[in-house]
Amino acid sequence: MTIKLYCFGESGNAYKAALALELSGLAWEPVKVDFFGGETLKPEYRTTINDMGEAPVMIDGDVRLTQSGVIQDYVSEKSGKFGGKDATERREILRWVLWDNHKLSSMAGMTRFLINFMPVEKQPKEVIAFNQARLAVNYELLNNHLAGRNWIVSDGITNADLSCCGYLYYPEPFGFDRSAYPNIDAWLTRLSQTQGWKAPYDLMPGSPADRA
Amino acid sequence: MTIKLYCFGESGNAYKAALALELSGLAWEPVKVDFFGGETLKPEYRTTINDMGEAPVMIDGDVRLTQSGVIQDYVSEKSGKFGGKDATERREILRWVLWDNHKLSSMAGMTRFLINFMPVEKQPKEVIAFNQARLAVNYELLNNHLAGRNWIVSDGITNADLSCCGYLYYPEPFGFDRSAYPNIDAWLTRLSQTQGWKAPYDLMPGSPADRA
Repeated sequence: MTIKLYCFGESGNAYKAALALELSGLAWEPVKVDFFGGETLKPEYRTTINDMGEAPVMIDGDVRLTQSGVIQDYVSEKSGKFGGKDATERREILRWVLWDNHKLSSMAGMTRFLINFMPVEKQPKEVIAFNQARLAVNYELLNNHLAGRNWIVSDGITNADLSCCGYLYYPEPFGFDRSAYPNIDAWLTRLSQTQGWKAPYDLMPGSPADRA
Repeated sequence: MTIKLYCFGESGNAYKAALALELSGLAWEPVKVDFFGGETLKPEYRTTINDMGEAPVMIDGDVRLTQSGVIQDYVSEKSGKFGGKDATERREILRWVLWDNHKLSSMAGMTRFLINFMPVEKQPKEVIAFNQARLAVNYELLNNHLAGRNWIVSDGITNADLSCCGYLYYPEPFGFDRSAYPNIDAWLTRLSQTQGWKAPYDLMPGSPADRA
């Protein structure tokens, strides 16, 4: 049975799940969520798809999962990939996935949204500047961690990489300058050169171009 | 061997780990981190305790873990408690722990810090108001989820409960009004009436009173 992923191109959180599915080799297909048309706010979406009102949502037969980190965990269990070699690696992967949810993707996603998907006159400038200052600390932390390493945790790609990269390939500006963080830059290049890798708007339906 | 937890009373993230340890029945002791004296910013802390510069950090013999969700996962593995009865519950717990890291504790912790631990003249008012508006949506979501339930995931306490409650027992005001969310209020009362439960400043060393 083909796994379905409810997603949309602009969502870096959906991208984390889509990229894990794509690189795992499991059979999957995207189902477009019309986020910008308000689909995730509608009662039907909340009651039948996801009570948290978020994308992505993965459906595999009777299994329905939300939160990208949970979907990645399921993909690892089913495919045997990206979950680490032993308990130590598994915990270290979870550590980076939680850090990403708390400090990197959450802040980057919100900041990118405020700058690119809100009318300029409504953008909360103080919030954007505050977020960007916090993000700079976290880019630096990841950049330092990647010194002398190919991947965040193990000797190959894990869910730590597939989580932390979630918002970092998007073309819309939100204050992240790859060239200022050479170890992050090299890591993103390395990951994007992996067989099967696709950029967010090539992997999932929906992009700003559709709404231009 | 007694497990050591590097922590400080004001940290809701440390509280999540401390409460899991305390209720699990494992032998543990706190080691006070002098966060307000700048200890987590020092190079020694970064190189010898935690390269992410955060608390809590758990040390159990050769195992050193950071991120409260990882420590909770370890406590569950070691004690057999709070981790769920099967794969479905395990994934649902992880879902709420990730949601909490992304949307609840991260925003509540930051907002409480800005309001209570920064000089009034330096507080970013627009950031605080923005965070509080986002938090209101998430309190509402948790309150709705708890309708007709005793616990977030299972028929007993799990790490989902021990994560989401992280900042909600603190006495310092940050815009969370228990009485406005009756299901959250009842759930917090239920948890606090569990044998062995302690409030943050009773469970960990350090509190605002020390610095008054």
